[in-house]
Amino acid sequence: MVQLEADERVDYLFNSPMKIIQSDDIFSFSLDAVLLSKFVYVPIKRGHILDLCTGNGAIALLLTERTNAQITGIEIQERLQSMAERSIKMNQLEHQVNSIHADVNDAVKQLIPHSYDIVTCNPPYFPYKADSDRNTKRHLELARHEVAVTLEEIVSISSQLVKGKGKVAFVHRPERLLDIMSVMRREGIEPKRLQFIYPKQGKQANIMLIEGIKDGNPGLNLLPPLFVYNEQGQYTKELLNYRYEK
Amino acid sequence: MVQLEADERVDYLFNSPMKIIQSDDIFSFSLDAVLLSKFVYVPIKRGHILDLCTGNGAIALLLTERTNAQITGIEIQERLQSMAERSIKMNQLEHQVNSIHADVNDAVKQLIPHSYDIVTCNPPYFPYKADSDRNTKRHLELARHEVAVTLEEIVSISSQLVKGKGKVAFVHRPERLLDIMSVMRREGIEPKRLQFIYPKQGKQANIMLIEGIKDGNPGLNLLPPLFVYNEQGQYTKELLNYRYEK
Repeated sequence: MVQLEADERVDYLFNSPMKIIQSDDIFSFSLDAVLLSKFVYVPIKRGHILDLCTGNGAIALLLTERTNAQITGIEIQERLQSMAERSIKMNQLEHQVNSIHADVNDAVKQLIPHSYDIVTCNPPYFPYKADSDRNTKRHLELARHEVAVTLEEIVSISSQLVKGKGKVAFVHRPERLLDIMSVMRREGIEPKRLQFIYPKQGKQANIMLIEGIKDGNPGLNLLPPLFVYNEQGQYTKELLNYRYEK
Repeated sequence: MVQLEADERVDYLFNSPMKIIQSDDIFSFSLDAVLLSKFVYVPIKRGHILDLCTGNGAIALLLTERTNAQITGIEIQERLQSMAERSIKMNQLEHQVNSIHADVNDAVKQLIPHSYDIVTCNPPYFPYKADSDRNTKRHLELARHEVAVTLEEIVSISSQLVKGKGKVAFVHRPERLLDIMSVMRREGIEPKRLQFIYPKQGKQANIMLIEGIKDGNPGLNLLPPLFVYNEQGQYTKELLNYRYEK
């Protein structure tokens, strides 16, 4: 049995039989999480994956469809971490997934350095919805301001937690391409796989997926583009069947 | 009347009524040139465009289909410059296009700094075909070695020749994405438009087009992907009608 707060509801995860606790007032997962969980390389049978800024746990949960590895999610907001924890329980995934309430900046001290095979992160952009317009704007401002700092911090933290030759994957906005690639290389995570997501044919890309290898050699692969909607405004088959095969 | 060397032939430019002198032994233009000449922003009526490493002049010639601006091509290899010059004459474009035989490294001294509205370059990768396997390998090695140096040089030279707020566009390999973007920003050419070219749907990108603005503000646009071949192995309509509209 799982308890729900008054503003919470239970949704199906994207194109999945799994369920997730969400709230319009607090947080709902986005397509970013779905895309990153399908994009990142994962070992199938074993290993340990760390998902930074896990929110309500969408990426951690979705990754269980692709791997038997252990998955740990870290979330700074207590309410979101509680949602993630209860969603894990609701899907009976306690044996595989756990959720930690912590500031990602403290993660390096709390966790074992260079112990994770894979690190994923969908960095916070609008961390949560506030009640009033004024608050919303203030929080959004804060969130935007944090992005610039947080991107560097997140890459640095990922680099300290991932194993040598382990993989680190992010989802972000194409506008930040040069920033994220530069910081990755500087922090010893060589960019290796890059994919752009386009809302539909003929439109500019609005989402970017990037994966690097800790202490990897240079050499970037530009994966086929992925379109979200077809001409009829429905999700494309590519998106619904999205399992990247190397 | 234009004279042809024994190994030379006259081809049509890609999807164009214009002609170009080529040689299997020396140099033939590639799709790279076609793509760059269609991708780059150009003023329609006036201005001056500089094409570095112009080879047999394909980009300079193709640009005349999009602009009435003056176009100058620079080529270090005398034989290629001669081919470009004769192709300009053959197409009766002497009033708009001229070709200079010069080392691109000397261009900054020979030309007027910050005087060009647009600078384009399809950097040399395999400058020409040699006679024997051993020579080929040696030349290819040299060419590859030069690429690393030349990319930085070309970006630096472009930056010195383009006007403030003028545009600089390159075609390159996606593997070099981070290198080229980093060098552009360092040299004061802010990356603004990026497009990846895929051989066909579902394949990795193998060509990258990038345009920056001298002293421009950060903010990258990721243009729709372009596919070269359709499922039937024919050129796509997008490629044949390729005129980028902002």
